[in-house]
Amino acid sequence: MNQSRLGHEKLRSKVMSAEDAASLIESGTTVGMSGFTGSGYPKTVPLALAARIEAEHAAGNPFRLRVWTGASTGPELDGALAKADGIEFRLPYNSDPIAREKINRGEMEYFDMHLSQVAPMAWQGFLGPLDTAIIEVSGIRPDGSLIPSSSVGNNKTWLDRADKVILELNRWQSADLDGMHDIYYGTALPPHRVPIPLLHADDRIGETSFRCDPDKIVAIVETDAPDRNLPFTPPDETARAIAGHLLEFFRHEVAKGRLPASLLPIQSGVGNIANAVLTGLVDSPFENMTAFTEVIQDGMLDLLDAGKLRMASATAFSLSPEAAARLNADMARYRDKMILRPQEISNHPELIRRLGCVAMNGLIEADIYGNVNSTHIMGSRIQNGIGGSGDFARNAYVSIFMTPSTAKGGKISAIVPQASHVDHINQDVQVLVTEHGLADLRGLSPKQRARLIIDNCAHPTYRPALDDYFQRALRGSYGMQSPSLLNEALSWHQRFIETGSMLA
Amino acid sequence: MNQSRLGHEKLRSKVMSAEDAASLIESGTTVGMSGFTGSGYPKTVPLALAARIEAEHAAGNPFRLRVWTGASTGPELDGALAKADGIEFRLPYNSDPIAREKINRGEMEYFDMHLSQVAPMAWQGFLGPLDTAIIEVSGIRPDGSLIPSSSVGNNKTWLDRADKVILELNRWQSADLDGMHDIYYGTALPPHRVPIPLLHADDRIGETSFRCDPDKIVAIVETDAPDRNLPFTPPDETARAIAGHLLEFFRHEVAKGRLPASLLPIQSGVGNIANAVLTGLVDSPFENMTAFTEVIQDGMLDLLDAGKLRMASATAFSLSPEAAARLNADMARYRDKMILRPQEISNHPELIRRLGCVAMNGLIEADIYGNVNSTHIMGSRIQNGIGGSGDFARNAYVSIFMTPSTAKGGKISAIVPQASHVDHINQDVQVLVTEHGLADLRGLSPKQRARLIIDNCAHPTYRPALDDYFQRALRGSYGMQSPSLLNEALSWHQRFIETGSMLA
Repeated sequence: MNQSRLGHEKLRSKVMSAEDAASLIESGTTVGMSGFTGSGYPKTVPLALAARIEAEHAAGNPFRLRVWTGASTGPELDGALAKADGIEFRLPYNSDPIAREKINRGEMEYFDMHLSQVAPMAWQGFLGPLDTAIIEVSGIRPDGSLIPSSSVGNNKTWLDRADKVILELNRWQSADLDGMHDIYYGTALPPHRVPIPLLHADDRIGETSFRCDPDKIVAIVETDAPDRNLPFTPPDETARAIAGHLLEFFRHEVAKGRLPASLLPIQSGVGNIANAVLTGLVDSPFENMTAFTEVIQDGMLDLLDAGKLRMASATAFSLSPEAAARLNADMARYRDKMILRPQEISNHPELIRRLGCVAMNGLIEADIYGNVNSTHIMGSRIQNGIGGSGDFARNAYVSIFMTPSTAKGGKISAIVPQASHVDHINQDVQVLVTEHGLADLRGLSPKQRARLIIDNCAHPTYRPALDDYFQRALRGSYGMQSPSLLNEALSWHQRFIETGSMLA
Repeated sequence: MNQSRLGHEKLRSKVMSAEDAASLIESGTTVGMSGFTGSGYPKTVPLALAARIEAEHAAGNPFRLRVWTGASTGPELDGALAKADGIEFRLPYNSDPIAREKINRGEMEYFDMHLSQVAPMAWQGFLGPLDTAIIEVSGIRPDGSLIPSSSVGNNKTWLDRADKVILELNRWQSADLDGMHDIYYGTALPPHRVPIPLLHADDRIGETSFRCDPDKIVAIVETDAPDRNLPFTPPDETARAIAGHLLEFFRHEVAKGRLPASLLPIQSGVGNIANAVLTGLVDSPFENMTAFTEVIQDGMLDLLDAGKLRMASATAFSLSPEAAARLNADMARYRDKMILRPQEISNHPELIRRLGCVAMNGLIEADIYGNVNSTHIMGSRIQNGIGGSGDFARNAYVSIFMTPSTAKGGKISAIVPQASHVDHINQDVQVLVTEHGLADLRGLSPKQRARLIIDNCAHPTYRPALDDYFQRALRGSYGMQSPSLLNEALSWHQRFIETGSMLA
């Protein structure tokens, strides 16, 4: 045991194996876990819990849990528990492929939530009690306060709400994380809420650690396991084209005086396209930028290193293994340029609106009026979840959605006559970008939006069919505000289900 | 001229006829008008403008305007200008039947916006310049500041942004309105935004009048014309049943400790059902209530009179002629219990979330998963607009939608397999109420939601068909998170278009 990581003397008696810790959890209870993307989730207790659940099932005993987290986690958590058929109900986000398959076979209930609302709703009480919190930390101070690890997520709330607490003390996490976090303790239920005193992305408004009553801590499990985020995917030609259109838009907005030369705090999802945009910003004329976002991904590190980004505020790291190693090797330096906060704060509508974020999110499909589906493939099959996209898109200064114009080798068009599921209504989708171009939809009526989306964003293969649909809808629709032909509106999706392609 | 209403001596030279004022407006320009519901809109200049437009059209000259307002207005504004074919583009809300018909025939472009976002987006600049503001006021002080009338809406922003200002000084409005309003001058564009210092619904954070450079005022037109809101519709049996379910829910939540005994600030739309709920609250056990809402309607006056409601904050009155007379006759007394604010503040996400509003809004249809369509009949024909429902539903402590279970004498079901248009995603729809019952959807997965909505809310005539659809979707859907049958999902709407009824 690295005693410098466990500074609270009396708590040393609580150190035990993952198996012993897992034995403290009862079937039918609710467990709140740390974890946001592949960062900061508990890595050994859930595995031990999955083994226990499998043993119970083999013995003919039911054993299922309600599992709450920050967002997605790693295979040792969602993957292992889903494989063991141990999750009855899951919130607020999932990207694990095994859990996804269970959900889409109807074997697991999944409540896909706005990430900013998880903590306040847990306090409201209708989600039920929280029995156990399992939280990864990077250290325990002599006064019992807990040093967070590579994600904050809902950990503050789980620690406050849970009857008992299991800690995973992970020495793989850098000891220099201490001091990076900003845990705000000013939230409350109404009528006791007050303004959140954050005016700039780099303001600190809280504490560097979690408070936790030591008497609630029933187990401490030592680990030395790495976070498991996805490997870095270098931007392909499509991603670079999307980034190019977007950077041109930013230059244009700055020239028009509608964005400052340092832009406004950027929010960016993860993945190929997001990294291409961030890489593009490295070579851009914009200086002294800030990020107020959910996750710090590889491209953000590059922007920090290039001196273009002054600081990044988020709730978690979402780094490739290489970037995580780079960060951990130099954490003391990066620490002053980064703040990790509870997701209730990183995604708070009040703050996103006040700061005026430039929000950049991906999507599954958009319709010709700019309604966006971020979650359900063909309207019914969940991919991941809405995550924080609604928090940011609704409240951003400019809400941008970006996507390749097709998927599955051209067999799916990202632009469709009608979205098969809607997560972001057209009012919250202001700019739409594909590799073919950008549609600035701000201030336009639905028909004006349709013209731009079809002309600028759709893949040329699908453009004639979209235009044909729109023209016929203009003649045959019941109403002309958002013309539609209901017999055809979802036929592209049905065709894909039947034939494997949206192409007629 | 009632000189006590026009206290600024130099401005007396600007008094002129509505026709002369209307002649100052050029075709192709953008006009920002006062008005929110049927309150506080200019009543004579738009009529004179409509006459001028008709004369120009008769002479073969094109004449069309871009018209911005607070929300809906009266027939002398939207009705007259639409009839004259004088509106090229309209934002952010319309409920005028003539304008609606023009929009749905494709003859007028309409950008239907979140009402909280109109003012900030006008400042962002992408909506273009604002040439003229036409604002109804109830008085002009000696220092040139303007006493608002029965709605505030976007007037502050129009006065600040417009190149020239035309005032309608309406003596029908009570002189005792002076002192009721709270005009906040602390908004800004990012990066200069700060917390809005409002902690309770009855906090005053601004000034009682509008600032306006007298040099921008090009005309003052005297009027004595009443606001024109809809007559009061007494609650019918359906409305009373909906109110009953909702009051039972409130009692239950208070008993569970999830709502305080004074509830939380209520937001309520207008109409039959909203009034039934407010009337029900008069006889409820809840005391010392507040309202933080868009409009003050008849039922709110009753609640104030009954001493159950301590105060009401809104951006406009939306009163029947009888209630308006009652208010005007006793304004000095009501004034201390009411605050009218800019709609940017009455609908601000930051404040709705902080105060924890109990939001109650109507709808056109909800689907079995609780996605709500508030705007488009049969997916394409606009009814009114999203208005403030998105501001409130997304940020409320409890977001409630209420509706009769059928419309058009039973030929339309308000619960459908799939919403033909989505304004409120299922995450923002927490409680759904019809005369048949209430579905508390909080914390449930889509399939769990569907079971409750079909069983508790659907009309018995449509329940078997909804259940049959859901059961078959559970077997035949592409994915099982939100099961759907795309060939049938919109077939009820198509059947209505073809046969005049959703009934098979």
